[in-house]
Amino acid sequence: MSKTEAVGDFGLIGLAVMGQNLILNAADHGFTVVAFNRTVKKVDRFLENEAKGKSVVGAWSAEEFVAKLKKPRKMMILVQAGPAVDSFIETLLKSGVEEGDIIIDGGNSHFPDTNRRTKYLSSKGIRFVGTGVSGGEEGARYGPSIMPGGNEEAWPYIKDVLQSISAKSDGEPCCQWVGDEGAGHYVKMVHNGIEYGDMQLISEAYDVMKRGLGMTGKEMGDTFAEWNKGVLDSFLIEITRDILYFNDEDGSPLVEKIMDSAGQKGTGKWTAINALDMGQPVTLIGEAVFARCLSSLKGERTHASKKLDGPKIEFSGDRKEVLANLEQALYASKIISYAQGFMLMQAAANEYKWKLQKPEIALMWRGGCIIRSVFLKDITKAYRSEPDLENLLFNDFFNKAIHKAQPGWRDIVSKGALWGIPTPAFSTALSFYDGYRTKDLPANLLQAQRDYFGAHTFRVKPEHATEKYPEGKDIHVNWTGRGGDVSASTYTA
Amino acid sequence: MSKTEAVGDFGLIGLAVMGQNLILNAADHGFTVVAFNRTVKKVDRFLENEAKGKSVVGAWSAEEFVAKLKKPRKMMILVQAGPAVDSFIETLLKSGVEEGDIIIDGGNSHFPDTNRRTKYLSSKGIRFVGTGVSGGEEGARYGPSIMPGGNEEAWPYIKDVLQSISAKSDGEPCCQWVGDEGAGHYVKMVHNGIEYGDMQLISEAYDVMKRGLGMTGKEMGDTFAEWNKGVLDSFLIEITRDILYFNDEDGSPLVEKIMDSAGQKGTGKWTAINALDMGQPVTLIGEAVFARCLSSLKGERTHASKKLDGPKIEFSGDRKEVLANLEQALYASKIISYAQGFMLMQAAANEYKWKLQKPEIALMWRGGCIIRSVFLKDITKAYRSEPDLENLLFNDFFNKAIHKAQPGWRDIVSKGALWGIPTPAFSTALSFYDGYRTKDLPANLLQAQRDYFGAHTFRVKPEHATEKYPEGKDIHVNWTGRGGDVSASTYTA
Repeated sequence: MSKTEAVGDFGLIGLAVMGQNLILNAADHGFTVVAFNRTVKKVDRFLENEAKGKSVVGAWSAEEFVAKLKKPRKMMILVQAGPAVDSFIETLLKSGVEEGDIIIDGGNSHFPDTNRRTKYLSSKGIRFVGTGVSGGEEGARYGPSIMPGGNEEAWPYIKDVLQSISAKSDGEPCCQWVGDEGAGHYVKMVHNGIEYGDMQLISEAYDVMKRGLGMTGKEMGDTFAEWNKGVLDSFLIEITRDILYFNDEDGSPLVEKIMDSAGQKGTGKWTAINALDMGQPVTLIGEAVFARCLSSLKGERTHASKKLDGPKIEFSGDRKEVLANLEQALYASKIISYAQGFMLMQAAANEYKWKLQKPEIALMWRGGCIIRSVFLKDITKAYRSEPDLENLLFNDFFNKAIHKAQPGWRDIVSKGALWGIPTPAFSTALSFYDGYRTKDLPANLLQAQRDYFGAHTFRVKPEHATEKYPEGKDIHVNWTGRGGDVSASTYTA
Repeated sequence: MSKTEAVGDFGLIGLAVMGQNLILNAADHGFTVVAFNRTVKKVDRFLENEAKGKSVVGAWSAEEFVAKLKKPRKMMILVQAGPAVDSFIETLLKSGVEEGDIIIDGGNSHFPDTNRRTKYLSSKGIRFVGTGVSGGEEGARYGPSIMPGGNEEAWPYIKDVLQSISAKSDGEPCCQWVGDEGAGHYVKMVHNGIEYGDMQLISEAYDVMKRGLGMTGKEMGDTFAEWNKGVLDSFLIEITRDILYFNDEDGSPLVEKIMDSAGQKGTGKWTAINALDMGQPVTLIGEAVFARCLSSLKGERTHASKKLDGPKIEFSGDRKEVLANLEQALYASKIISYAQGFMLMQAAANEYKWKLQKPEIALMWRGGCIIRSVFLKDITKAYRSEPDLENLLFNDFFNKAIHKAQPGWRDIVSKGALWGIPTPAFSTALSFYDGYRTKDLPANLLQAQRDYFGAHTFRVKPEHATEKYPEGKDIHVNWTGRGGDVSASTYTA
């Protein structure tokens, strides 16, 4: 065939592990895929190995990549988020891309960049889609969760290929149109934030088992295997089981040799920052990100471990009972984390004027992605039965679940504090639950303090409104007898 | 005298409560101050009332304001942070400001804006200073804490007036040059973040007293009065005492009538976001900001209070003992919060190439500002004796203090969890302490998970390095037996 015959149904740029696997996945579903990579050696290597005998066509230049695709061209870029995406977009624009063609950014771009790129490309008649892809190496190969958003005109053209390669949950593809502009990358960002949270919760449970109960790798693996048959049944619990069972050549668990220092420069951080910007108390993801920050201070912690003492743990109680409580603590904290995540997405949808389908989001997360779980089936059910559910905790199923989990959850947070084992995520989840269900929080004192020192004024609770203190009026009291009655308008302490 | 005779030593724009009080403060110290406000009615009102008989001169236009100041002019802008500052700067530039003149932004500007403005104005030969001013209404009037940074050329000219009006601590002015560009506003930002934390900690203690121990306003006021004689001796504890004693006309504590809904759109949020950007685990400020977010969801909380149950509290133990533990919990958590704050400032100084004098910062916070306390004397002492102290917790005094406080602290966090009273700040401080002093955190599991699902690779702990797993090498293991050995380079889950 001629070197530039348009045979490709779908094109992908970026042949790292995710890219390679998505290509093989699409080829398995009968699509002819054009593969390109800036370092073209990777194209040769891929074609000679993983892609051998599959419907994968190589391209050794951007022009060739574009020329080999059927119109409207469907081109996915899967490279490091940031400037690399913009530069590939510019390269494609210079390489024969035409009006109506579709460029898909499948990387972990920050949603404001996707907002910008969608507008920029639509001004050139190019349809841009930013999609979250989750599932890691395995997911990309055998069916990831795909969360596309951007220029909705593109959806009819890419729906077939994306839904074909995506995971299925009870026959439904874990790939649905999310919303305008950066909505797809936004939902993927929150997904990753929740993933940070789930991983932190599992790490805390592992720490309590190991240091609190003195369990072996095998015993811990057995416990996670057991948990994977219950309410916690999920991909992350499953791989934790495998990891704890995985021994090194010397017969000891490999995980214990791995450096306890985790990075956090990505989407988890963005989620926490966005939560602060939205004014939403997404505390569990926040603590999960900070826990990674703390883990990275390995040298300082090693130094501190010699200077700062804690309680000596000598557990002699009923291990089975603590493990049952631990399972409940993890489950309840997870419910809180997802409730917080959906609170955040709701706030963002209002702020950015996106239409987000909560049941669809839960469905997309049900299969293929890192946080896939039985749990998300229940969330899908909850939002399908009540699309306008104010908070996940108000749904009967989760309401019952969290009340059932409460005693064990409280026991674990209390034990963590008394034993000296850090449980930042378990604890913040419980504090959120107790704060959320509290009609009268102590923030009244805080408002009084702000009026005292900064004349920032306060309002009264409706039930205490009087003629002197009408509801909704900004009131300043001269608490000291000294000072003036001028209220602050410019200064915020 | 002629309407435009240059009689002013110092000029101030913005006659809200802080501005008026700073002017009166400067006048009391023998400076002739020129007062201007965009809404000039405020100038008249101020001159006829608070400023009557003081060395305060009014200006009814920007030109007049500039003309009435001696050269090099020292002009402070004290308006809402944001565009208003830029527009007043432009107005001044158009109103006769000359090379060598000094413009001081005394508001709560975000430090990146101050970086920008310092560069912009120095390109015009104008010396720009961004200074934090803390102390609220009272502080501004009788001696605030002042944290100036920016164009250091200005310091010799403004040092006299700023140090004269600033608070003094043991005779030392709580006003020192902080550093280049936005360093002054940065330190003020962290100060405010710490203030958020202190206020949240006090609120949690108040909540435990009120709902946990069933104490009356008078009893709680007495407790804070008692605490104000000990290690917690500080402005915020003092005003909390006053607030709890302050009864409304009906004889009941006014604070109980105040709406428990607090805002958080300012410097506290910036501190938390900056901490995430710096990768520093400043968890207590983070929780304090999120606690305000949660407080603002009053309607949702009211709804939740009917749908979500918790334990019934029936305390029948020794109240004195719990209160003693509570004092220790507050003290220990406060030590953690300040340790985190100084970790953040150190990281920022490295990142932005600022020279920050930690003893000077502690000195500036010792008096005048909202967080002023005996506590900060001890911090000043600590950093003066060890300027390169890696962490406050390694200083003998605080090391002893936190070990002494530990049992009570753990008791309160445990009780909060069992009683159903939210203690997000107490809890996160304890989790930080326990994580910080842990040589081997469970993040090793997290790294194993990331390598399992995303081929993100991991490193081994030095003590486990082998020929197969050398120290510092990025290792990928095929955990499943399936999947490839390609490691991820573009995809970050």
